[in-house]
Amino acid sequence: MNGKVYLLGAGPGDPDLLTLKALRLLKAADAVLHDDLITPEILGLVPATAQLHNVGKRCGTKKITQAEINFLMVTLAGTGLQVVRLKAGDPLIFGRAGEEIEALRRADIDFEIVPGITAALGAAAAAEIPLTDRRLSHAFVLLPGHMAGDQKAEWKTFVSSGATLAVYMPGHDYSAIATRFVSAGLDLETPCAIISRATAPGQQVQLTTLREFPNAPRLPAPALLLVGEVVRFARAGASFDASRSFPFQNTQAFFLQAQGLAHDEE
Amino acid sequence: MNGKVYLLGAGPGDPDLLTLKALRLLKAADAVLHDDLITPEILGLVPATAQLHNVGKRCGTKKITQAEINFLMVTLAGTGLQVVRLKAGDPLIFGRAGEEIEALRRADIDFEIVPGITAALGAAAAAEIPLTDRRLSHAFVLLPGHMAGDQKAEWKTFVSSGATLAVYMPGHDYSAIATRFVSAGLDLETPCAIISRATAPGQQVQLTTLREFPNAPRLPAPALLLVGEVVRFARAGASFDASRSFPFQNTQAFFLQAQGLAHDEE
Repeated sequence: MNGKVYLLGAGPGDPDLLTLKALRLLKAADAVLHDDLITPEILGLVPATAQLHNVGKRCGTKKITQAEINFLMVTLAGTGLQVVRLKAGDPLIFGRAGEEIEALRRADIDFEIVPGITAALGAAAAAEIPLTDRRLSHAFVLLPGHMAGDQKAEWKTFVSSGATLAVYMPGHDYSAIATRFVSAGLDLETPCAIISRATAPGQQVQLTTLREFPNAPRLPAPALLLVGEVVRFARAGASFDASRSFPFQNTQAFFLQAQGLAHDEE
Repeated sequence: MNGKVYLLGAGPGDPDLLTLKALRLLKAADAVLHDDLITPEILGLVPATAQLHNVGKRCGTKKITQAEINFLMVTLAGTGLQVVRLKAGDPLIFGRAGEEIEALRRADIDFEIVPGITAALGAAAAAEIPLTDRRLSHAFVLLPGHMAGDQKAEWKTFVSSGATLAVYMPGHDYSAIATRFVSAGLDLETPCAIISRATAPGQQVQLTTLREFPNAPRLPAPALLLVGEVVRFARAGASFDASRSFPFQNTQAFFLQAQGLAHDEE
């Protein structure tokens, strides 16, 4: 009898934001291979009888290669187990799913992809920021914080589009990120929100501008950076840094003006 | 006593992809204001005692303005009801959430945003397409199918980035979309997937290339178009149009070559 692998999204952190399907599969799993970013509350849902493997690549000195993760998944499912490959957020966004799908197909292991709420959606909900808005931003771009040198050119193209930008795992070198955005042509007054541990205990939302971003407090990972005019919608007082005079705490005037552009209907 | 409004994401269609929180709030709702795209299976979860309002803007001759929707939400919550504003996918993506958030804040109505799985994630899971891949695509862009004239320039910038593109609600004028992508500089052989009713009964996945896209069968709404090199990963045989010689049904050779670029680790 053959097992099956579920590439399963755990959502942004709050166990209440697991899908019904994800909860059922987690509770029925024989083995769970999880990333570092999965919250303890979600890991607590895995049955005590199931094997639990932390295959996170960021956990201190521990180091497991993608090839080893693939091998583990295939081997466990090959012995007939129901294997959950549990990924923070959605499994198909910045999650090496392509490599895992290839390995599973090559080994002829039955698998299924179960979507989850990706980090940017949890972060935006926490900060009350619409990611698109017909008056301000018509598109939404998901970017990784760490990019190889030849990918830097990409930022310029995205900045010029006026789209809302989400930077996943921005790290703590805020100066480098601000410099990259500014040299890509983004205005210094562009509003930004850093959202740390969205939807999980210890959630923090820090509102700033690109100009002030290098001086913003370093918030703990997992964090996400949202950049663009829609950040003006962010909930006032959401762990707001009171030491700065944030120019758009009251969005009323701004939007009364903007509403002239959009009376009703598409 | 004041009520509360939940801007709540219903996910891509399958009720099993509702979050635990969404299900609980739906079952406790006094009133539900829903879009046209919500599946009957999900509407069936609303208690029989709750008010159910279809506020969809696409339902034939019926026409309700955004201002009327805002008024209804505010009025119902103002009488003390628990109101669910139920949106397909995630409430913050292409959903007029900005305007509803403003209306709720202006009326001083308590509200909360509950994220959901956005359509692109459901569609990609159904077709087994990783939306990013470190060998092929480092970013992911969400675009609306219907854009005003002055937004057309945006497509050029996104195409030049090499990112995976998701077009929400592409409509049935496939020729116009193909022309827009080609004139923006996208190669005619770029793989595309049209995913209709992802994760819901009647799901269909149609794989094609930009060259052949104008001749592809028109699939029923809600549909989503995924464009980019990662579409090569799509599951072979997923309602595949057998009448066309699809050049990348067997991804093996392609990826063995690509793997030379990426041995392991970031």
